[in-house]
Amino acid sequence: MIKPGPGLMKHFLQFKDLRAEEYAYLFERARIIKARFKNYEKYQPLADRTLAMIFEKASTRTRVSFEAGMYQMGGSVVHLTSEGSQLGRAEPVEDTARVISRMVDLVMIRTYEQAKLELFAANARVPVINGLTNEYHPCQILADLFTLIEHRGRRGADALECLRGKVVAWVGDGNNMANTWLQAAEVLGFTVHVSTPEGYQVRPEVAGVRDPGCYRVFDHPMDACRGAHLVTTDVWTSMGYEAENEERRKAFVEWCVDDDMMAVAQPDALFMHCLPAHRGEEVTAEVIDGPQSVVWDEAENRMHVQKALMEYLLLGRIG
Amino acid sequence: MIKPGPGLMKHFLQFKDLRAEEYAYLFERARIIKARFKNYEKYQPLADRTLAMIFEKASTRTRVSFEAGMYQMGGSVVHLTSEGSQLGRAEPVEDTARVISRMVDLVMIRTYEQAKLELFAANARVPVINGLTNEYHPCQILADLFTLIEHRGRRGADALECLRGKVVAWVGDGNNMANTWLQAAEVLGFTVHVSTPEGYQVRPEVAGVRDPGCYRVFDHPMDACRGAHLVTTDVWTSMGYEAENEERRKAFVEWCVDDDMMAVAQPDALFMHCLPAHRGEEVTAEVIDGPQSVVWDEAENRMHVQKALMEYLLLGRIG
Amino acid sequence: MIKPGPGLMKHFLQFKDLRAEEYAYLFERARIIKARFKNYEKYQPLADRTLAMIFEKASTRTRVSFEAGMYQMGGSVVHLTSEGSQLGRAEPVEDTARVISRMVDLVMIRTYEQAKLELFAANARVPVINGLTNEYHPCQILADLFTLIEHRGRRGADALECLRGKVVAWVGDGNNMANTWLQAAEVLGFTVHVSTPEGYQVRPEVAGVRDPGCYRVFDHPMDACRGAHLVTTDVWTSMGYEAENEERRKAFVEWCVDDDMMAVAQPDALFMHCLPAHRGEEVTAEVIDGPQSVVWDEAENRMHVQKALMEYLLLGRIG
Repeated sequence: MIKPGPGLMKHFLQFKDLRAEEYAYLFERARIIKARFKNYEKYQPLADRTLAMIFEKASTRTRVSFEAGMYQMGGSVVHLTSEGSQLGRAEPVEDTARVISRMVDLVMIRTYEQAKLELFAANARVPVINGLTNEYHPCQILADLFTLIEHRGRRGADALECLRGKVVAWVGDGNNMANTWLQAAEVLGFTVHVSTPEGYQVRPEVAGVRDPGCYRVFDHPMDACRGAHLVTTDVWTSMGYEAENEERRKAFVEWCVDDDMMAVAQPDALFMHCLPAHRGEEVTAEVIDGPQSVVWDEAENRMHVQKALMEYLLLGRIG
Repeated sequence: MIKPGPGLMKHFLQFKDLRAEEYAYLFERARIIKARFKNYEKYQPLADRTLAMIFEKASTRTRVSFEAGMYQMGGSVVHLTSEGSQLGRAEPVEDTARVISRMVDLVMIRTYEQAKLELFAANARVPVINGLTNEYHPCQILADLFTLIEHRGRRGADALECLRGKVVAWVGDGNNMANTWLQAAEVLGFTVHVSTPEGYQVRPEVAGVRDPGCYRVFDHPMDACRGAHLVTTDVWTSMGYEAENEERRKAFVEWCVDDDMMAVAQPDALFMHCLPAHRGEEVTAEVIDGPQSVVWDEAENRMHVQKALMEYLLLGRIG
Repeated sequence: MIKPGPGLMKHFLQFKDLRAEEYAYLFERARIIKARFKNYEKYQPLADRTLAMIFEKASTRTRVSFEAGMYQMGGSVVHLTSEGSQLGRAEPVEDTARVISRMVDLVMIRTYEQAKLELFAANARVPVINGLTNEYHPCQILADLFTLIEHRGRRGADALECLRGKVVAWVGDGNNMANTWLQAAEVLGFTVHVSTPEGYQVRPEVAGVRDPGCYRVFDHPMDACRGAHLVTTDVWTSMGYEAENEERRKAFVEWCVDDDMMAVAQPDALFMHCLPAHRGEEVTAEVIDGPQSVVWDEAENRMHVQKALMEYLLLGRIG
């Protein structure tokens, strides 16, 4: 078994928990780990390590990407659902954190309130990863940025350079994805053009950003897309907001990414979506199934960036 | 890691997806893999490979046989239930197939409609295995045939010979098991004697067979069993048909495999049942717990033939 | 793969299923296995072995400790919940035992009636472990005793010596934990001081002990704690008894382990609790979060003693 490297234990609860140079390292490790895997080279640095995954919201994508990723790195996974273990019901979250972190090496949590995740992490002896909260979704943005870098053919020190000064258009709900894009822009030096319907605006105090230069707000989604290097959106109604479904369908009707929006973006702009997608709602079939869409690579890359992240949190820098 | 051998990617969605010579290979591999395992020889050709199992119907037997089998071959398993991932609900089946098959190496699906399974497979980048549909259950028949060959002491090229021209009596519901027996008879050259109650007949157009010589229909189950080398049945009410339970109990009352039926079969005829069994309904306790019954070997062999199948779909022919 | 050593197959269904010398062996193995794991030494004697875990009652702690423990020993786990496989519903328990024990190497069951567990074990080809029943919880007591030995700094032949003649105070419900403490006292030669509310007494005929010297009953919990080397309790309402919750809260109000009780115990007495704990009910926050409490070590040790137990049941004595 590989012993952990020196250094403080880190969690990954928000995007701003890591610094730009750490992201540069992660992007490069993800590239190497993915390439080795595609070439059938055995690489099992996490042998004997166990990841506990705690799901209070179900998710196929997060589930499979973390679980298969951990197996590919030689490790094991214990998958806990809220049915069996709702955090804070049978015992205080602090106690669950103390017990579980005595038995496993790493914990991924998908829950509702960010505060519950933070409370768990504060009482855990092992690194904790945010697998989605109402407020943030840092693993998805890590995958999206890596996919952008990969499609630009950048590697090593060039990775961050390829992001700096670029424009990401966020079209739709001012949700956990939007918040995390703002944090990523602040950490990595790009700009998010945000366009949301009235009442669904991104709130910088929730997003947790200080630099007003990391984002610009646009009333009309076409304006947000103009000149963008990446156009991205999400479902109109995220999990947990189903009761607002009808109301949201009306409010969001003009926030559908279509060919017109892609046409005003950069000619080589990419389209991303964290999936599942509702064609005809937040994006047209032409766009998501079209040549600028990289959504399947993006989905696969969740797994590869998370392998790099888990390796880093458990072992520190390699080599 | 072992790279896959050359050749087209294959799925295992119906029994007729493979040819007789491929079955000969699988029976021999299953025999070797089982023997090695019983002798505690380490054999892990699927190290670093991940199987996703998608269950829309629960199943202990299919679950344990695939999952333990994959572990024994060195691989890993992600177990998805419909609760977390009902196919076609949150997103089109095509999208789920695209995403999951980017993250894992092999997919097993247990669902209702064969059409959904086929749609998934058509959009997957990796092999897909039918773990049970309303129409077919090819893994079970693979296990049953292997169990017959094993009990006859045949191996290698003799395996198919031991099936050719033989008679399998199917007593009971014209269900997915019956359909698959017909396909197997057509591919491997034996005959199925089918006896079902009125209204529960096997339908060759659903079974998907063309050769009328692969089965004969009998009104009375005794006639179907006469001279049979294998007598086999299933519960009167399969999963998904519970609403018809009362009606079926009346219709099926004479389709109970008992000592009289076994007495008219070949003296060395075997009895099989895919389990769970209801003693006193489709089979008497005397038969299922008697000397001609091989149901526990049959259950164990699910695991061994599926190991051979997974090895073949992932790696092609070995040696 | 390591072949099993000679000897009869053993189950672990009650504490008295093993003899004192076997416990001495298990405590020493647990110490060695834990020390190796903490030092990142690879030790995978259960490679290629699969554990089936059958949960009819949910449990985070039992789940994670067995599952992570099996992974750390190189083995694999199939996790079955009652939803997918309620014992005795779809088929007789005997049939499930026959089938599952053909496919896996070891079975852990958490169920309600001890009789169901015993019936499963009687029909299984592989060792079966009691992961909790209404009557007994032997894995927890194994962990508790190991934790006591560890905190006393004992090892090897000294381990049993450190228990002999000591006093364990059980304060609260005369439940499966209490029953198992009595069995442990009889096997290992210590005494349990039991104090329960009227109507919740431990019943020696259920506990299954013959030696009246293995326990003493006290009306008042303070008297039970006097001179004790270990004070331990459990929630007032165990899983399955939630309907009695209100009644129990009234009956148990004086059975709260507090500083006064700890003050009359030995000066170096330890406090244990199998968790989850309800501070302010069966124990005060001062005690469970205080210096004499070893509940987090106790929780972690579930995993290590169970690794030793699984190794012993599968491989016999090592070296």
